[in-house]
Amino acid sequence: MKSSELGCLESGDLRISGELICKICQDLYNSGWVTGTGGGITIRSGDAIVIAPSGVQKERMQLEHLFVMSLKTREYLHKPLQALKPSQCTPLFLAAYTCRDAYACIHTHSQEAILLSEVFPNSDYFSASGFEVLRHIPRGSKRNGFYSVTDAVKIPFINNTAHESDLHDSLKAAILAYPEACAVIVRDHGIYCWGDTWQDTKMNTEAVEYLFQAYLRSRKIEY
Amino acid sequence: MKSSELGCLESGDLRISGELICKICQDLYNSGWVTGTGGGITIRSGDAIVIAPSGVQKERMQLEHLFVMSLKTREYLHKPLQALKPSQCTPLFLAAYTCRDAYACIHTHSQEAILLSEVFPNSDYFSASGFEVLRHIPRGSKRNGFYSVTDAVKIPFINNTAHESDLHDSLKAAILAYPEACAVIVRDHGIYCWGDTWQDTKMNTEAVEYLFQAYLRSRKIEY
Amino acid sequence: MKSSELGCLESGDLRISGELICKICQDLYNSGWVTGTGGGITIRSGDAIVIAPSGVQKERMQLEHLFVMSLKTREYLHKPLQALKPSQCTPLFLAAYTCRDAYACIHTHSQEAILLSEVFPNSDYFSASGFEVLRHIPRGSKRNGFYSVTDAVKIPFINNTAHESDLHDSLKAAILAYPEACAVIVRDHGIYCWGDTWQDTKMNTEAVEYLFQAYLRSRKIEY
Amino acid sequence: MKSSELGCLESGDLRISGELICKICQDLYNSGWVTGTGGGITIRSGDAIVIAPSGVQKERMQLEHLFVMSLKTREYLHKPLQALKPSQCTPLFLAAYTCRDAYACIHTHSQEAILLSEVFPNSDYFSASGFEVLRHIPRGSKRNGFYSVTDAVKIPFINNTAHESDLHDSLKAAILAYPEACAVIVRDHGIYCWGDTWQDTKMNTEAVEYLFQAYLRSRKIEY
Repeated sequence: MKSSELGCLESGDLRISGELICKICQDLYNSGWVTGTGGGITIRSGDAIVIAPSGVQKERMQLEHLFVMSLKTREYLHKPLQALKPSQCTPLFLAAYTCRDAYACIHTHSQEAILLSEVFPNSDYFSASGFEVLRHIPRGSKRNGFYSVTDAVKIPFINNTAHESDLHDSLKAAILAYPEACAVIVRDHGIYCWGDTWQDTKMNTEAVEYLFQAYLRSRKIEY
Repeated sequence: MKSSELGCLESGDLRISGELICKICQDLYNSGWVTGTGGGITIRSGDAIVIAPSGVQKERMQLEHLFVMSLKTREYLHKPLQALKPSQCTPLFLAAYTCRDAYACIHTHSQEAILLSEVFPNSDYFSASGFEVLRHIPRGSKRNGFYSVTDAVKIPFINNTAHESDLHDSLKAAILAYPEACAVIVRDHGIYCWGDTWQDTKMNTEAVEYLFQAYLRSRKIEY
Repeated sequence: MKSSELGCLESGDLRISGELICKICQDLYNSGWVTGTGGGITIRSGDAIVIAPSGVQKERMQLEHLFVMSLKTREYLHKPLQALKPSQCTPLFLAAYTCRDAYACIHTHSQEAILLSEVFPNSDYFSASGFEVLRHIPRGSKRNGFYSVTDAVKIPFINNTAHESDLHDSLKAAILAYPEACAVIVRDHGIYCWGDTWQDTKMNTEAVEYLFQAYLRSRKIEY
Repeated sequence: MKSSELGCLESGDLRISGELICKICQDLYNSGWVTGTGGGITIRSGDAIVIAPSGVQKERMQLEHLFVMSLKTREYLHKPLQALKPSQCTPLFLAAYTCRDAYACIHTHSQEAILLSEVFPNSDYFSASGFEVLRHIPRGSKRNGFYSVTDAVKIPFINNTAHESDLHDSLKAAILAYPEACAVIVRDHGIYCWGDTWQDTKMNTEAVEYLFQAYLRSRKIEY
């Protein structure tokens, strides 16, 4: 495509954010968290947020597929030339941006989130303690420091809804009710995870998913 | 090889389809669904269908290995120079193309298909409900919309046969009997999955296989 | 290194075989079958066999690490300039070459081979039936055709020994006693698998390992 | 960055060590041992040790992120221009370098280490016998030879602490108390593994982790 067709993604910080989204989509695909176009990602640069579209295979994501929205006006600063749909996660990403001053958000379709939903059918939150990885999980934001190994992290569950956008209110409520969480588990669906930078967001996502895996695998030993 | 030896695969839409087949074969190999030359793939371009051959390692697939057949006349429009055999899946791919107006079809040898065969030894179909991924599975074709999270998708089982081509009649019968399925499970063997475009086909395959995995892990079989 | 230092690996069929060994070593590493320098591989070109050395990380294998031996005289036609040790698998590879007229042999340290050793502590062979993948497993050589889905393939077990080279006699005996097997399982250790070409050998290895995995995973369902 | 900003990492053996660290970090990430910036690695060149920093994503590690320290003076010979923190593992790496004359050390956050902690809640060490991979595990250093298949290797456990650096004394005590171990397991955390060269260190790490996996799977925990 002609570079002019990339609009504000053509250069500068937005281009860097866009290229990062494409690379991280490949990482997330390789981790099994976004197969079949599941999941989503957004990275913020000042007032502008770059968002991967709906329905595009994550491992084939290109700059020309991405949307850019103004956080203040909620208007699209750039839309792809192709007739792509904005991500259905957009309202949820906005909740993380506005309630937490996050600079990126990742939505995974991890099967561990599904399994935890079944292990804790009636809990408001997932809790675990004693794992080294807790030292890599921030208390909502790294501005508040990190958990220690003996702390019990709490990551809230919210129920899944018929449409992704219907998750907005309960996600926002969970974000506000659990200020020391950097992620929310959507039952039978996946997680939303954010951070103070795109690096923090990717690290927080991997740390939380690692905790889920280690917890589930450890739990089998008790059987 | 001389480019003229590629025949109708040398340029245009058929070349694009051929190159996609080679790339997707690598993806499928990395997913563990086509090791040891198991499985198969075809992509359609108008009346012509491009088909990966039998007996070639999927992760080493090249343009020069591919066959092209006319959907109308069932004659080969192009054969590879090397003495390769056409895919034994060809009659099955044709069933998906003609009964569903599909534009691509993927055949996996996923072990989850084998496990489900044993979990449901006497069922006509696999059924599951409550998983977010259902929203990514079309009702046979996206022209009919997608399942909702609370719907119970049904994916038919057919029995395996001594020769792959002998599957044709039962596969066709299952396709016709389950118009809202985008895949068929061959017991102790794998799946056939199709879609309205090659992108849909790859996404449908990943969504169906994800559902199988999540279902089996939820049942505590594959924790 | 100067190309002359590659000796007979510098060009022609031996160079092609050597480059294939390096590429396939990466595939085998990614499959988890040769981590920590475990496992081995050899490819034959006429009277010459190219062999990966002992003690080199498989995913970093280079042409300059490889040995070349004459099948007839058992003398090295080429040794690497670096002081590397020949593979301890060499006598075992020779057994496959001479008893079966194979053109390649792969030795994996697959954990499935270990698990099967414990599932069948007293059996002379592993046997399985009913899996589609049997149609991809040759009766010793593809010259004898392939198994059908309802056949019961038999793959012999031999006991592990203190030194890899001590496996030679029992491996040779198993090869001769099971003419319709294309692989031997060394208890608590891994497998040796061969084929009529390097392609067949890689496909046979993947098919046999797939069968092991599918068998072990299916067996859990009965619990 | 200007090459002069790399300081002593710009050329020679230190640059080679630095580039190896970046490559091996990708390998370790792909193995699932250092996700979310967990884990660490160091390689020694004479008196200088190159160390990956804290808080940088392992799969994106670059030369410009690395620290270099003098083993004798414990002073930094080079720090990255970016405001990065030295690895919290540094005191632990120093213990391996000084107590064992190692030339590299890898710290993984493998979940198998966590699982073994729970399988053996009261043991001073993990022990296993009968696995072929024992022949790839050195008796502390390859200068002392390797285990045989029938030997019982012992790998000590130490308890986790609130801060990584607090592990130093118990790690050093375990290294001294188990001279025939090339690794230490930190309970609920991961392993430290060293070797006579960087190649040995990577091979030892893979061999020890393979043993853990095979042991757990054999016990039917991870089938």
